[in-house]
Amino acid sequence: MSSEPLGVVLVGCGTVGGGVAKILLEHADRLARRAGRPVVLRRVVVRDPSRARPVAIPAGLLTTDLTAAITDPAAHVVAELIGGTSVAKKVVLDALAAGKHVVTANKALLAEAGTEIFEAARKVERVVCFEAAVAGGVPIIRALGESLAANQVTAIQGILNGTSNFILTGMAEKGLTYRAALAEAQRLGYAEADPTLDVDGSDAAHKLAVLAQIAFGVAARPHQIERQGIDTLDPMDIRFASELGYTIKLLAEAWTSESTQADRSTSRPVGNGSSPSRSEDVASSELKTVALHVAPVLLRHTDLLAQVRGAYNAIVVHGDLVGETLYQGPGAGMMPTASSVAADLIDLAVGRAQRTFAVARLWAKECKGFTVEPTERVRSRFYLRLLVADRPGVLADVTRILADEQISISSVVQHEAGEGGDQPVPLVIVTHYAQTGRFRAALGKINRLAVVAVPAVFYSVGD
Amino acid sequence: MSSEPLGVVLVGCGTVGGGVAKILLEHADRLARRAGRPVVLRRVVVRDPSRARPVAIPAGLLTTDLTAAITDPAAHVVAELIGGTSVAKKVVLDALAAGKHVVTANKALLAEAGTEIFEAARKVERVVCFEAAVAGGVPIIRALGESLAANQVTAIQGILNGTSNFILTGMAEKGLTYRAALAEAQRLGYAEADPTLDVDGSDAAHKLAVLAQIAFGVAARPHQIERQGIDTLDPMDIRFASELGYTIKLLAEAWTSESTQADRSTSRPVGNGSSPSRSEDVASSELKTVALHVAPVLLRHTDLLAQVRGAYNAIVVHGDLVGETLYQGPGAGMMPTASSVAADLIDLAVGRAQRTFAVARLWAKECKGFTVEPTERVRSRFYLRLLVADRPGVLADVTRILADEQISISSVVQHEAGEGGDQPVPLVIVTHYAQTGRFRAALGKINRLAVVAVPAVFYSVGD
Repeated sequence: MSSEPLGVVLVGCGTVGGGVAKILLEHADRLARRAGRPVVLRRVVVRDPSRARPVAIPAGLLTTDLTAAITDPAAHVVAELIGGTSVAKKVVLDALAAGKHVVTANKALLAEAGTEIFEAARKVERVVCFEAAVAGGVPIIRALGESLAANQVTAIQGILNGTSNFILTGMAEKGLTYRAALAEAQRLGYAEADPTLDVDGSDAAHKLAVLAQIAFGVAARPHQIERQGIDTLDPMDIRFASELGYTIKLLAEAWTSESTQADRSTSRPVGNGSSPSRSEDVASSELKTVALHVAPVLLRHTDLLAQVRGAYNAIVVHGDLVGETLYQGPGAGMMPTASSVAADLIDLAVGRAQRTFAVARLWAKECKGFTVEPTERVRSRFYLRLLVADRPGVLADVTRILADEQISISSVVQHEAGEGGDQPVPLVIVTHYAQTGRFRAALGKINRLAVVAVPAVFYSVGD
Repeated sequence: MSSEPLGVVLVGCGTVGGGVAKILLEHADRLARRAGRPVVLRRVVVRDPSRARPVAIPAGLLTTDLTAAITDPAAHVVAELIGGTSVAKKVVLDALAAGKHVVTANKALLAEAGTEIFEAARKVERVVCFEAAVAGGVPIIRALGESLAANQVTAIQGILNGTSNFILTGMAEKGLTYRAALAEAQRLGYAEADPTLDVDGSDAAHKLAVLAQIAFGVAARPHQIERQGIDTLDPMDIRFASELGYTIKLLAEAWTSESTQADRSTSRPVGNGSSPSRSEDVASSELKTVALHVAPVLLRHTDLLAQVRGAYNAIVVHGDLVGETLYQGPGAGMMPTASSVAADLIDLAVGRAQRTFAVARLWAKECKGFTVEPTERVRSRFYLRLLVADRPGVLADVTRILADEQISISSVVQHEAGEGGDQPVPLVIVTHYAQTGRFRAALGKINRLAVVAVPAVFYSVGD
């Protein structure tokens, strides 16, 4: 192993970049011990050196000259920490072209351009590391790629956006509206001024695309992942769900079908806080398709993910050998994310990352992974909430439509009308397992009923 | 990288060995893909080839000849899966002497003889891998050693014994006595006929010793780790704790002191299911001592570990950069444990394990790690339950003794006496933070009070 120092160039010195600089500057001894060689900050490339930074960068390290920094012969790794997909992509490709390894926390970039970036890296025999790109300080990339390497992953369910989970926790525990919970999150620094990418499911979809590449070899582009955010969530549905024993969480989910036969569909895995199965024989069936989506999902209060509060991230991975394992921690923030970037730098210094990269062949064109299954074919239980006229025959009409689509009902709760006698009445129906396509067909018909006041609201039920 | 097959010898073919054999035999294609080269089962060494096995081993692979198996030039790794510390130690040392890497699931062996085994491995430049030794299918060894490598771990709190957690869950949720819950665990295969090592805290202490070596470089021998099991737990205390908002869990815990100054002691970390801290500046103080123990602990119902049910294992790790991360999954069982052994085999085939081993210098004599702090000096809150005569002045006597030791009281609940008027009455006191030594001194005096019917019961309170 080389004992030459590993030279690092940081591109970007905002929250995450500042955190990484802090670790490299303040914990040099510790890093050298853990990496078996010094890990040295060579340059910090920024657009405006005069701007205030979260950490004091020694004179001479700050520069605006990207090209000089990444062609420095004593630099071995370029950490791209500026975010976005245009400049960041150029930085990454230029760094690889200059023969440097790349570490990035940029899920959007990987989701959009993973194939191009990884091909470029393989061409020059350099490595791209990205532990910080998904779930901040939670080491889910290593878990999927290394710790569970003997398994075929059969499902992933993740709370991958801390902002959304913080808002949902506020709505559930304090009875806040979405607006009020968002305002609180913004005040406390858990949500950006423009929270769109966090709350509409886009950020979680980018992260899911990255996880799906590792677990299933599928190169799903973000626009291929159906998503529904939390920005339209009505407190009434959080309340009704809770009365039925469920917590609503924004989940990024992937499930494989157990078979490609036409009569079998992908079903949501059943699992919650009971003991792991002792069934020790897992059928090694052919797994070929995977369904991916981001959406609010009703989880039993006792489900492991239902209990994840605030800005935490958490991921449950189902492996065919190990069963269900859970990884939880801070999904964002300066030092948690920087901790993951630093772990990648240590892996590069030790030489582990190079071994992993060569074998994993991520985003490789020749690797035939799973294909993405249309959401229509996924089987799930559904929560359906209507606002209907308080009139005889409404329930009969609605349940007839569901029956016509072969959807059977698990429970029905008709809530009391408000003060005024002619206000619409909330009607909540939870179905048994049904194919999403059939459920949506029924929904279309229900929404055309004259007694249905506003379009029906529906969410998947996670058991 | 070599594309030569990695040859594997299994020693032991019980539950875990059988699971590993199953993976190697039934998932050869998958392993070859993930490892970049074939991983081939060369021999399965057993004492009695005629005994029934959990998996059919092809003729010719089963052997009783250990020496021939581990000197096979086409064998590169010996997986020791027999357990125990005498024969297993000889197998491991012989394998290393024969120039083979070793994979083991044997926490007792590592805890007892880690220094000797790792020195032997370094001498012959071979590797010892042991992901399966702690928490079965939960990848806590990689998490501590690689994913969190940039952090100084400041505390570990783990549910490391699934049998105990299964029994505690039965006691808490079904109101069972220890005996009845144990019988159920035995009936369902979650407890051995002789459950001593699981329920008395020994197994968890072995695992804690292994984790403490990785996180703190401390070579704590198992007998140095204070332990209290669940076998003496009274259902009454589970009930009283629950009424106060706590769940009792058998925890293996390690905390560092933040300073070596005489006026500072090691305090239990405060942490539970609220949002991760946004505080982004972690003081890099000198961490020199670590306290270790295994004991039933009262955790708030909302604490992450309080919610771990059944035979699961879970570990919360506090890192100075990342904050709190949680790892949870099946802590035992054939395929979960075999999944971790197989991950080690893949790491050896890829070449990662060799890099990690060279840098980590585990159980190395020249590495000065933390020193073990006597439990007496650890500060904690305490739950104290007495059975006292229902007589005036009792509470005054008890609280005076606590006050004399500078222990202040957080809450007191005196429970109703039973039917007979002269039965002793349960008196429950929860203290604020106090030094364990002072608390124990008070306890001695309390037990000598004439009104105290049986020795006081006490547990740490985890917040």
